[in-house]
Amino acid sequence: MELEKRLKEKLEAPTLDYEKYFSEKALGMKASEIRELLKLVETSDVISLAGGLPAPETFPVEIIGEITKEVLEKHAAQALQYGTTKGFTPLRLALAEWMRERYDIPISKVDIMTTSGSQQALDLIGRVFINPGDIIVVEAPTYLAALQAFKYYEPEFVQIPLDDEGMNVDLLEEKLQELEKEGKKVKIVYTIPTFQNPAGVTMNEKRRKRLLELASQYDFIIVEDNPYGELRYSGEPVKPIKAWDEEGRVIYLGTFSKILAPGFRIGWIAAEPHFIRKLEIAKQSVDLCTNTFSQVIAWKYVEGGYLDKHIPKIIEFYKPRRDAMLKALEEFMPDGVKWTKPEGGMFVWATLPEGIDTKLMLEKAVAKGVAYVPGEAFFAHRDVKNTMRLNFTYVPEEKIREGIKRLAETIKEEMKK
Amino acid sequence: MELEKRLKEKLEAPTLDYEKYFSEKALGMKASEIRELLKLVETSDVISLAGGLPAPETFPVEIIGEITKEVLEKHAAQALQYGTTKGFTPLRLALAEWMRERYDIPISKVDIMTTSGSQQALDLIGRVFINPGDIIVVEAPTYLAALQAFKYYEPEFVQIPLDDEGMNVDLLEEKLQELEKEGKKVKIVYTIPTFQNPAGVTMNEKRRKRLLELASQYDFIIVEDNPYGELRYSGEPVKPIKAWDEEGRVIYLGTFSKILAPGFRIGWIAAEPHFIRKLEIAKQSVDLCTNTFSQVIAWKYVEGGYLDKHIPKIIEFYKPRRDAMLKALEEFMPDGVKWTKPEGGMFVWATLPEGIDTKLMLEKAVAKGVAYVPGEAFFAHRDVKNTMRLNFTYVPEEKIREGIKRLAETIKEEMKK
Repeated sequence: MELEKRLKEKLEAPTLDYEKYFSEKALGMKASEIRELLKLVETSDVISLAGGLPAPETFPVEIIGEITKEVLEKHAAQALQYGTTKGFTPLRLALAEWMRERYDIPISKVDIMTTSGSQQALDLIGRVFINPGDIIVVEAPTYLAALQAFKYYEPEFVQIPLDDEGMNVDLLEEKLQELEKEGKKVKIVYTIPTFQNPAGVTMNEKRRKRLLELASQYDFIIVEDNPYGELRYSGEPVKPIKAWDEEGRVIYLGTFSKILAPGFRIGWIAAEPHFIRKLEIAKQSVDLCTNTFSQVIAWKYVEGGYLDKHIPKIIEFYKPRRDAMLKALEEFMPDGVKWTKPEGGMFVWATLPEGIDTKLMLEKAVAKGVAYVPGEAFFAHRDVKNTMRLNFTYVPEEKIREGIKRLAETIKEEMKK
Repeated sequence: MELEKRLKEKLEAPTLDYEKYFSEKALGMKASEIRELLKLVETSDVISLAGGLPAPETFPVEIIGEITKEVLEKHAAQALQYGTTKGFTPLRLALAEWMRERYDIPISKVDIMTTSGSQQALDLIGRVFINPGDIIVVEAPTYLAALQAFKYYEPEFVQIPLDDEGMNVDLLEEKLQELEKEGKKVKIVYTIPTFQNPAGVTMNEKRRKRLLELASQYDFIIVEDNPYGELRYSGEPVKPIKAWDEEGRVIYLGTFSKILAPGFRIGWIAAEPHFIRKLEIAKQSVDLCTNTFSQVIAWKYVEGGYLDKHIPKIIEFYKPRRDAMLKALEEFMPDGVKWTKPEGGMFVWATLPEGIDTKLMLEKAVAKGVAYVPGEAFFAHRDVKNTMRLNFTYVPEEKIREGIKRLAETIKEEMKK
């Protein structure tokens, strides 16, 4: 009772003017309104195509159980202790070997640092590379949380449009020439080349190689974010950009979130040892080290061959969902709506006729029982209103079909106006 | 062979001028030289009193095994998935209840956010509260990694000396008056009031209350870092400062690192919901969420009553080590050397006669087979040379005795000069 009273008082009658203690930069940090809206959706019976979550059915729970038991029996003293900032060495070794074998990328453990998820890698890259005003090229659209992470460091974002073959490198080259004329330089090109978030498209090999040539010519760093690369449901694999990186310009980001489980928050950076060294110093002051227990589990998962055995099972689980979404879009969407046909990953990107604002339409869609993420926030300049991201990994096929049907109805009504 | 050749080439002949891509702030980030030196020590047969690690014998491995099994059986879908940025709700509820019962602090889950260790909490506090030039008061000496975390945000540090009763609040008051005359304000006072790192001393109740009065009068925020509070080997408990915090000025930091295991990297912040909200937005862009798997384990550990049952066992394990160190210091140290007598925690702080530089002396100590952390780096202004931190939790009693004996010999030789 006493507690309740005091808690109530505290919320109703603030004792401090809280805002005045915040830093200038913190005052500018706002919660995403979309995220707030979608929080409500997740508790209702709306079919949500808005998420970005892997399906829990893909988590290898039994394998994790066995590994965890073994870790506690044989490696407890190490797995429960502080670790080095750079990461658990056997895991770094195993990841280097895995990348060598799988992608033909000649790296060793000195090129690898583990991180608390890929999100931390993005923040550390911001911290280590971005001065206020530095030009960062991003795809349009691009990963929302990468924009958030970089934004803190106050770069200037330049957008390069995507098409079905990924980032349009010809447009990038034009932009680079233009900037050069103005005496400006690009510091970083950030790309998710494979099964892009949010667009689902994949950069072809020719463009990957061309991007590296441009990096050398115009002297920039490439940040290659590859969370979805292993989730291919059709088509031929393309190697990561890092595989052709002769000069060491590519900072590659990997993660266990989609090939083991996101709850472990284990990502990694593969880059030149000189870059790794500085990223390590930066990481030391933000969280000392990545969760050791989860790193040891991830090590056993890679080193024991479980990873390579489990990936096909995830693919088998997601492929019908991808197919179901593409089929439903084909079946229900009115003329004038376009969408990408991803060969892998988690997302389809839809473009509605000009004039429809998907942010304004969201409430109507939710009223009809379906949710999506309006595309605006995926553009650094927030200049495109008629797009949306649709997730196909989290809800089962029949719900995907029903969700797309409801969405198509909403769009048709909107188009009639 | 091909790999080896390419790796060798890469290290010997840099293909890029790496430094030029770094941000201004990153160029200023340096690895600690002491840390580098101590890395070497840890692989040799030197007795290291330099660490800050809990003893692995205190990790409740069996309990963790049981809990982990239960978590994977009953909560796998949740424990392996992404979580909310603010943290796993049942854990936040359990922590609020635990703090209410143990410390009589009237809080609920809205006052709590979990973090990737306390180190992340320190970084987030820097991000959310510190503008360049803001005045942050720290104890002299204080926790090294807190200085590192705050430093990135470019505050001005003001040092307040410690004595056997913790931070000298009279000196703080004088300093506050002085600053006020200059038209300056303190933004944050950072304190580790209980079993301080590195000094081992505890702020008495009277000073805690006085500090709160000063906070109200001079309008600053108190960051109360309490990683060691539960590790009391003698004397009477003192409540956290947060227990008397009527105005909501105290941001309290807790951690599981010393009462469960550091490898889980689970800490928490208890503060006004308005502060928590902003810290949550900041955390979102740095790592999305804290390791869910470890949070669920920590929840079961608190909620199942294991925490309260395990703390006495940790105390039982560490007390003889604390006693052994104090006894050995008494037995071997020459006149002119002073040290603190901690009632808990992990560290003793020793002060040698003026004129001895413990950083310069370290190499000689290592040659004699003992290591410590030179005190200089624990001072924001690096203005004290004749102190050192000695850890008593990691090595067994007989080694502590031998280590202190070797250290005393080193000091005696140094004093003869």
